[in-house]
Amino acid sequence: MLNLTALTEPGFCPHGLNKYASVMACGNGYIGIRAAHEESYTQQTRGMYLAGLYHRAGRSETNELVNLPDVTGIDIELDGVNFTLLAGEIGHWQRELHFANGELRRSVLWRSPEGRQYRIESRRFASLDRLPLVAMQLSITPVDATAQIVLKTGIDATQTNSGRQHLDEVSVRVFDAHYLQGIYETQDRSAEVVISASCRLSTSDGDCCFSAKNRRITAHHALTVAQGDTVTLEKLVWVTHRTDRALSQETFARNALTELKVCAARGYAALLQSSSCAWENIWRDGRVVVTSPEPQDQLALDYAVWHLTAMTPAHDERSSIAAKGLTGEGYKGHVFWDTEIFLLPFHLFTRPQVARNLLRYRWLNLSGAREKARRNGWPGALFPWESAASGQEETPEFAAINIRTGLRQKVASALAEHHIVADIAWAVVAYWQATHDDDFMRNEGLTLLVETATFWIGRATEVNGRLEIHDVIGPDEYTEHVNNNAYTNYMAWHNVASACRFMAKFARKDAGFTEKAAHFLAHLWLPEPDAQGVLAQDDSFMAKPAIDLTRYKARAGKQTILLDYSRAEVNEMQILKQADVVMLNYLLPERFAPQQCAASLAFYEPRTIHDSSLSKAIHGIVSARCGDTEKAYAFWRDGIAIDLGDDPHSSDDGIHAAATGAIWSGVIQGFAGLQIVEGELHLAPKLPTHWKTLAFPLRWRNARMHFTVENEALTVETSVPVTFTLWGKTVTTTGRQVWSYEDFLTSVNGTATTEGGDNV
Amino acid sequence: MLNLTALTEPGFCPHGLNKYASVMACGNGYIGIRAAHEESYTQQTRGMYLAGLYHRAGRSETNELVNLPDVTGIDIELDGVNFTLLAGEIGHWQRELHFANGELRRSVLWRSPEGRQYRIESRRFASLDRLPLVAMQLSITPVDATAQIVLKTGIDATQTNSGRQHLDEVSVRVFDAHYLQGIYETQDRSAEVVISASCRLSTSDGDCCFSAKNRRITAHHALTVAQGDTVTLEKLVWVTHRTDRALSQETFARNALTELKVCAARGYAALLQSSSCAWENIWRDGRVVVTSPEPQDQLALDYAVWHLTAMTPAHDERSSIAAKGLTGEGYKGHVFWDTEIFLLPFHLFTRPQVARNLLRYRWLNLSGAREKARRNGWPGALFPWESAASGQEETPEFAAINIRTGLRQKVASALAEHHIVADIAWAVVAYWQATHDDDFMRNEGLTLLVETATFWIGRATEVNGRLEIHDVIGPDEYTEHVNNNAYTNYMAWHNVASACRFMAKFARKDAGFTEKAAHFLAHLWLPEPDAQGVLAQDDSFMAKPAIDLTRYKARAGKQTILLDYSRAEVNEMQILKQADVVMLNYLLPERFAPQQCAASLAFYEPRTIHDSSLSKAIHGIVSARCGDTEKAYAFWRDGIAIDLGDDPHSSDDGIHAAATGAIWSGVIQGFAGLQIVEGELHLAPKLPTHWKTLAFPLRWRNARMHFTVENEALTVETSVPVTFTLWGKTVTTTGRQVWSYEDFLTSVNGTATTEGGDNV
Repeated sequence: MLNLTALTEPGFCPHGLNKYASVMACGNGYIGIRAAHEESYTQQTRGMYLAGLYHRAGRSETNELVNLPDVTGIDIELDGVNFTLLAGEIGHWQRELHFANGELRRSVLWRSPEGRQYRIESRRFASLDRLPLVAMQLSITPVDATAQIVLKTGIDATQTNSGRQHLDEVSVRVFDAHYLQGIYETQDRSAEVVISASCRLSTSDGDCCFSAKNRRITAHHALTVAQGDTVTLEKLVWVTHRTDRALSQETFARNALTELKVCAARGYAALLQSSSCAWENIWRDGRVVVTSPEPQDQLALDYAVWHLTAMTPAHDERSSIAAKGLTGEGYKGHVFWDTEIFLLPFHLFTRPQVARNLLRYRWLNLSGAREKARRNGWPGALFPWESAASGQEETPEFAAINIRTGLRQKVASALAEHHIVADIAWAVVAYWQATHDDDFMRNEGLTLLVETATFWIGRATEVNGRLEIHDVIGPDEYTEHVNNNAYTNYMAWHNVASACRFMAKFARKDAGFTEKAAHFLAHLWLPEPDAQGVLAQDDSFMAKPAIDLTRYKARAGKQTILLDYSRAEVNEMQILKQADVVMLNYLLPERFAPQQCAASLAFYEPRTIHDSSLSKAIHGIVSARCGDTEKAYAFWRDGIAIDLGDDPHSSDDGIHAAATGAIWSGVIQGFAGLQIVEGELHLAPKLPTHWKTLAFPLRWRNARMHFTVENEALTVETSVPVTFTLWGKTVTTTGRQVWSYEDFLTSVNGTATTEGGDNV
Repeated sequence: MLNLTALTEPGFCPHGLNKYASVMACGNGYIGIRAAHEESYTQQTRGMYLAGLYHRAGRSETNELVNLPDVTGIDIELDGVNFTLLAGEIGHWQRELHFANGELRRSVLWRSPEGRQYRIESRRFASLDRLPLVAMQLSITPVDATAQIVLKTGIDATQTNSGRQHLDEVSVRVFDAHYLQGIYETQDRSAEVVISASCRLSTSDGDCCFSAKNRRITAHHALTVAQGDTVTLEKLVWVTHRTDRALSQETFARNALTELKVCAARGYAALLQSSSCAWENIWRDGRVVVTSPEPQDQLALDYAVWHLTAMTPAHDERSSIAAKGLTGEGYKGHVFWDTEIFLLPFHLFTRPQVARNLLRYRWLNLSGAREKARRNGWPGALFPWESAASGQEETPEFAAINIRTGLRQKVASALAEHHIVADIAWAVVAYWQATHDDDFMRNEGLTLLVETATFWIGRATEVNGRLEIHDVIGPDEYTEHVNNNAYTNYMAWHNVASACRFMAKFARKDAGFTEKAAHFLAHLWLPEPDAQGVLAQDDSFMAKPAIDLTRYKARAGKQTILLDYSRAEVNEMQILKQADVVMLNYLLPERFAPQQCAASLAFYEPRTIHDSSLSKAIHGIVSARCGDTEKAYAFWRDGIAIDLGDDPHSSDDGIHAAATGAIWSGVIQGFAGLQIVEGELHLAPKLPTHWKTLAFPLRWRNARMHFTVENEALTVETSVPVTFTLWGKTVTTTGRQVWSYEDFLTSVNGTATTEGGDNV
């Protein structure tokens, strides 16, 4: 097993149950399982989710990621007492999620209220090489005396999403006195879920019986365990689903059982071993290593890469990444622009095939986006602000009810946060730049670019001879319904320009489009930086008053501003949730001079509360690019704290998926200075002063590269020669090369060593 | 307040949470609320139900009593620690359901795991004079030091029936910073539920805010309470529902809020006082008082009368009594023959209007019963074995899956347990006999009698010139699909005969019916007692082998026989769940000589496991009538133990409604010897030897009577003169009279004192 960090839960605390259930969730991109304890707690939310399995539970509800029947719960009765850490005493506690192999382990020495001690150990993982497999072990050792132990576990379909029922029970079965199987259907009959489980004890002593009642099928084990002996319950679960009905239900269910039996024959240890091998490949392709006196720096990077893998349905281009991954029900499991802007870069530079899948998801959902544009009177494709299994808009029509007035506010995002269209186009371009995957670009890519460009061309309004884009919301959701949002206009221009460029490159002819696009590009109003280099966020922003935001920034992420001001009032002040112009600087670095980036950063940061978890990470990257590495590091650390900080409730309803992407991006695009500029790779590593080394793998087109930054020098290893720009100079590297920053400074001062670096 | 018993929970025990939540449930016939604690426990099932509010949550489900959004839960945080009795120490504990006024109270002195003590007291009742009102108080006193207290409570619609969702959230509101309101609709849109709640603290200090998320609307109170001070949270809840849409939703909801505000202005104490007055009337009309050295005897009688009132929708003839009352989800809240046979007698003899309502429920549902008969090819009305809000058959089509074979067994009850038709007819006759309510009999009663009689006439099969009833299941469900079940045949005969008698009485002409009925009565095969007086349960019963049932009888009610034998095997032996012939003797006493009753009891009891909770009570009454009062008392005590015995899980999913009826019947129809024979009232009191007195009120036609049995004498008080049969002699009583048993013995021995008894 690789020597990686592990995420540790320092002790049992009822308040932190759901945070740790999220951050320690197991997953493999196909299935996600919250790290709920085997024993139940009233405040503990169990959750198991399948990527792409959404359903709508009632007329006024929206599609949401279905919380599946639970398999993790085990009622543990020790000498007649229900095991719960709320009672008795905890003599020893250890709980860790091991990133190397994705295994969640807990070891507890518990003294019951009646004074008897038991050692209780459990392990669990979701297999990375057998995606439908979840494996668990529970071991119990009575320390003081022979114990009577009763274990009850099975498949519990009383699970709901906060009371919303998605599945009907079709049947429950027991086979061969070891295997349980439940067959479920979504209430709309569109999908079928088969959960098969085997439960085996390490001893053949003891009674076993089964019950099936009230949506629960349960194996009951009752046994006597001698003092010092250990009994282990091994539970293997195979979770499959389908929307097609190619096979009969019976065959589909029988096949699942067969697969489970194959696993059962191998056993937990062997299954973990082969899953670990799959994880080794992930780490080889994606692990970022830093040498830092702050242990949390490496932990955060491992945490990020682990969850970026666990949340991403690499196996299935019909689904994408939910805002909370597969770790909770926040945002109902919907897919946002987070995927393209915050999550895709990691995949693009480590497993580009996954980035391709994520873009294919959008391509497969084009019809919904076209339909949304059409219904709103525009041409082309207007991608939904929130999406699920189809391209339909899934944003709830109404936000939470204002409980004082009783009125429901329309959610504005779906109506006006149109930048997602350009964000997807941006990701298509980035994907091609990093891969030169002409096959994709010629087909899906170009279609996406042209459809999105067509939307913008139709979306613009002519005002006195120039084209403007009115009534939009930029990424900064504290400023709604503005005209000529800088982020939106620049990104739309980039979208249309990219469509034209790739049409030309692939000799695609469409005179009508080309003409309209040329007119758009020539006439779209692109706000210009002022004398100081500051770009106005939108037409009205600069005229609004600013207020001191210190106390709100001190509680960033909590939206405390809304306790003092209404949304309408916030809208009329220079108050940002996140800074659009900084985000724009990040995405289109070649459009703005460094001085302009720095000026906008300096202007907007004091006006930004960072109430979006997406905010600080981007500020960090732009700060790093502006040369302020220490400020960048401070932003990056704040980004880590979103999930890994002290707030016991920060992640109750799931991890912040985009924030994990930002942890990776903050280092690679921030401290390593990776950018794509004019389609080419740029690096300019500059580490925080207390970091000794930074090492990471990178995929760039057909090359597998590895970078190590240490002592102001960069060691590059590459599988094929790559030309890229390092510290502002174009270099070509092959094999293993070391480049010294000092040499580059020298060259900037006149010494021409463009192909510098020592061949070693 | 009346001096009644109270039901006590002796201590906090996690295993007994659901039993006590059932037996201590509050209710008023309109609403039932399980006695769940304010704080949550993983094994505690909360439940709040409205009589008659059923819904089907999914294709393969059946209609079930909807578990409403919860209002009883309160998150109690004391100095940062969540209050739970699983942790810390319980210094003092008292928990009681006071039958006099229906108030549930708990008082706990709790030492938190951090060593601080708090006194926590709570009270709750469902108002008997304002049916939609549920009132609660929670008081907290920090004992050792000033405490920071956080209380969160509201309306929690994440409640389900074991994961089955019935309600969609339509809206949630807060009014005047005190009142919460949630509007819900069943998913099929047939019913609307409005829950309004007011939350007020006894102090105006402290912060209060509200949240509405994920089907929960919650008031959050945070406050500081000085050492020794007590803070009280008063929560009043108004629960209304409707199926009509006469008013707009807005008006309907506003009216509910207005009602709640009226209650809030009165306050908990005044509301409890006026509810107590309503209870006083109940006790005046129905309380049975015994003097017994066994305190449980009186407790059981108060328990029974209390729940018989709390479970019965006296306000609404469109609903009837669920098998678990309004205390849990067992049998999905369906209505069985239990209502007419086990529950109606209590109402008939205490509040006959309620008995009328219960029969009107059947009358209102006649169309469903006719439809069921028609679909099965029979004329008349075939009442469903299980019913809910309509007359449709609600019995699940399939029983629990056999988890070994995977096959589902068809539920036979709905197909063949037709005796319910005659049971309803029996109750119609009994109602008229006890009330002489000609108005009812002329209309609803006679319709019910003729429709049910018509069913039997069509149901019979002619075999060699005699009519037989084939392929039925009697009350004894261990014997399925038999011919000429004695219970069914006799009851069917009684049904048809009664129809004829009342047609004649009310000069109703229907020559066709009368002719068919006469043929049926003349030709229906009525099995005859053998030489010993034993009546065969059915055609095949006497030929089946008997086995020793001792070990199964020792665990009566647990159906342990089915662990050793399949249902098919049980069917082929003389093994009874309950004894049909004993039940028949009980219902139609005039049909059988005392010696025949005794012979059948002696024959069948050893063959009866009493696996039905309905079994022992009837054996007890028949034993009493046969003169074996001590055996009757033993049976009666076993019947008490069904809900009030030591088994911590006996009543997890609700009380045994029929068993409460049987507690009353066991005393009044057993020890007081009440029977209706040939339409007239008979009494023959004979108390268990250790009972000193028995006193009870009784309604008989237009008389309000009161009986006291003491020292082998009976004191009768009556509002108008009543003629009845006492100890076998017809007497007429008026005012207050005392009758001595000895005198009757004497008279039997020749002294003619038929109008005996001392006028005092």
